[in-house]
Amino acid sequence: MKNHPDQQQEHASKTMPHVVIIGAGFGGLQVALDLADAPVRVTVVDRTNHHLFQPLLYQVATGTISPAEISAPVRHILRKQKHTNVIMAEVTNVDTERQLVWMDEQSLHYDYLVVAAGSHENYFGHDEWRTYSHSLKTIEDARNIRQQLFEAFEKAEIAHDEQIARELLTFVIVGAGPTGVELAGDIADLAHKVLPQEFRHVDLHMTRIILVEALPRILPAFPETLAEKAHKKLREMGVEIKTQQGVTRIDGEGVKAGEEFIRTQTIFWTAGVQASEVSSWLGESVDRAGRISVGANLNIAHHPNVFVIGDNASYIQNNRPLPAVAPVAQQQGSYVARFIKQQLAPQSGQKPLDTFVYHDKGAMCAIGTDFGILKVGRTEMAGFFAWIAWLLVHILRLISFENRLIVMLQWGWAYLSSQRRVRLITTSKAKTKSQLPKEPVHV
Amino acid sequence: MKNHPDQQQEHASKTMPHVVIIGAGFGGLQVALDLADAPVRVTVVDRTNHHLFQPLLYQVATGTISPAEISAPVRHILRKQKHTNVIMAEVTNVDTERQLVWMDEQSLHYDYLVVAAGSHENYFGHDEWRTYSHSLKTIEDARNIRQQLFEAFEKAEIAHDEQIARELLTFVIVGAGPTGVELAGDIADLAHKVLPQEFRHVDLHMTRIILVEALPRILPAFPETLAEKAHKKLREMGVEIKTQQGVTRIDGEGVKAGEEFIRTQTIFWTAGVQASEVSSWLGESVDRAGRISVGANLNIAHHPNVFVIGDNASYIQNNRPLPAVAPVAQQQGSYVARFIKQQLAPQSGQKPLDTFVYHDKGAMCAIGTDFGILKVGRTEMAGFFAWIAWLLVHILRLISFENRLIVMLQWGWAYLSSQRRVRLITTSKAKTKSQLPKEPVHV
Repeated sequence: MKNHPDQQQEHASKTMPHVVIIGAGFGGLQVALDLADAPVRVTVVDRTNHHLFQPLLYQVATGTISPAEISAPVRHILRKQKHTNVIMAEVTNVDTERQLVWMDEQSLHYDYLVVAAGSHENYFGHDEWRTYSHSLKTIEDARNIRQQLFEAFEKAEIAHDEQIARELLTFVIVGAGPTGVELAGDIADLAHKVLPQEFRHVDLHMTRIILVEALPRILPAFPETLAEKAHKKLREMGVEIKTQQGVTRIDGEGVKAGEEFIRTQTIFWTAGVQASEVSSWLGESVDRAGRISVGANLNIAHHPNVFVIGDNASYIQNNRPLPAVAPVAQQQGSYVARFIKQQLAPQSGQKPLDTFVYHDKGAMCAIGTDFGILKVGRTEMAGFFAWIAWLLVHILRLISFENRLIVMLQWGWAYLSSQRRVRLITTSKAKTKSQLPKEPVHV
Repeated sequence: MKNHPDQQQEHASKTMPHVVIIGAGFGGLQVALDLADAPVRVTVVDRTNHHLFQPLLYQVATGTISPAEISAPVRHILRKQKHTNVIMAEVTNVDTERQLVWMDEQSLHYDYLVVAAGSHENYFGHDEWRTYSHSLKTIEDARNIRQQLFEAFEKAEIAHDEQIARELLTFVIVGAGPTGVELAGDIADLAHKVLPQEFRHVDLHMTRIILVEALPRILPAFPETLAEKAHKKLREMGVEIKTQQGVTRIDGEGVKAGEEFIRTQTIFWTAGVQASEVSSWLGESVDRAGRISVGANLNIAHHPNVFVIGDNASYIQNNRPLPAVAPVAQQQGSYVARFIKQQLAPQSGQKPLDTFVYHDKGAMCAIGTDFGILKVGRTEMAGFFAWIAWLLVHILRLISFENRLIVMLQWGWAYLSSQRRVRLITTSKAKTKSQLPKEPVHV
């Protein structure tokens, strides 16, 4: 519909190979960015309009920062790449024979396809638990958790039965990976440091934060010594930790962890992820986590022009599939962009690209507002300086300058004043039952 | 449940008169703040947990600022007032005989009651139009408008039928008061300045923004000369203005304004407000806007300990009811607090409080990002400096220092870079139909 001076250029670009990227998460966005100057047309398809910095999503859930501060419109990020299109739509199928990506009744023809559709929470066969628990993968999830948390405190304040108040103030987090640990630490800060002075009737110090993990220890991806320090710190902050406790029941009454039944209406589920359902599109089989096995160049066996990266891919390195974390997706995204560029412009004498190798830059985790753990190469650190390092790394990894600035301000405010600014309860979608007693309240 | 050192003091306070305030908007919050040092117990009841700065809500709707930046938890605002309670609950009835405020099956006994429950949009007898249009009174409303707006642009980008794209890019705003005018100006900026460079297929310059007003001119509360300048500025920005056009139909196809039927799926309703349904609680009759007539001391005839303020009150001054604006509610709130304090501690020889008089400090309105109009006393201004004054006044009126700082940053960024940061589309609740064509798209 446009009639621009650059229409001719646009027309010329129609003859360039078309790279379609499904998903604008860490992996997909990296491919698009790295193809900025390549002689290709790029189309990014995502079901939302924004790239989300998931590592800080738990801070939206606990009211420290606003959703917009960790997200940016994909269209805006890629606005200067004239040959890059962004489409907000849900992919419904892929036709690998005709090389088409289908979104309902629309389709896109591709020359190269990159599947980077991410993952959702894995309930390990108990999808009925979804009704009674909150996961933390999207902005909506984070808003729902925030609503649930702050509504629980409000309801406890007006509950006149102490038993009901205790139940409202029991928060169970299932899964002690970094997300579960960071969420538990932040909720402990809320309940024990930030909010108590603002409540007149209920004593928020009776809040129970229970972190449940099926494995023998928390933070299984970290070295044992660091995990132990994190464990100790969480305990000091008032978090109860139940390791080696499998969850066998979740319903409107509470959660059964090991032999104990914990009465609660607030359950957060961070126990693992399941790749999005892309395998059926590609006709590929998957592993238990829904991931598709990819070859040395991250493409699939019968369709070398189809790449699968990030949480959707199972890539074996050192006899183990790579973990579903952002750096893996980003490095795979960069690799795919390099691979496509080399295929398009092979230079004489140039060696073909080596197989993909993931370089682990380390891992870190924040516990509360003054303690972190980190592992970089052989260096291991725990304590305040690891927390500062965590802050810096997360600020620098945010996508835009203005997000960095505003998140820094929010953190400065939150950590120096022990306040949380973003405590919105709007329309109630919380999963707590109304617990009003029958008698009049006398305040 | 608490067992604090100050429990005795808390106990002592039980004998103090109890002021119950319904609503934590501008009026209710002002009463609570002004009673900080009075010998009373105060309980603020609100259905949400936050005070909302509604004058900037339209900027949430257009993606300039985040909801948390114009709101603050009521509990947090009042945290230092030890004799003040905050309850998040929905008031369902008032028993003026027994002096009880009911929230479902809980009740609170009051000695003084302040009703400051605010208002909602007024569809003037056409509540069925609610289904097809968006109002702008709550954070949820603003999020829904934001979603609707940005989704319309996204859908237009992939619509392959120009007629469908034009329909998606037709935005109708009903009601040309300050909210409608400010919204229209901001949407014009979005469509014509901020977004076009980011879209590849659709030409956003064909966006139509239509401001519909039943009265003969826009901004009826402003002097005619200023309204004319605002009108001219809006026209320059590409806003179509239809005055003296009553709306007679709104449905899934569009809106009928005057004789014209405008095909659109995006209709914003800012045509007027209706006071919340509090009259039946108090057994009082109301005017057309649902307001209760109050006496010279802002209380109601048969119950001098019941005050009604803000949008709920009809107070005649200079032969006209005062308008439903924040300064009226705030001045009324201050007056009620003073009145209660004087009743509790009458000093010998002191004259009884004069009747309430509203002091109009003026009015202002922003149009786009470089033009404003303002009227203060006899001073009238239009243009860039009026816009700067608008910025300063709104920053200063925000409730907390940190909100002021962050909104200033957001504005600095938005206005200097012509960007809008907060463009989140999450779960779709937009009111547009899906408009996907049947043929494949070739991008």
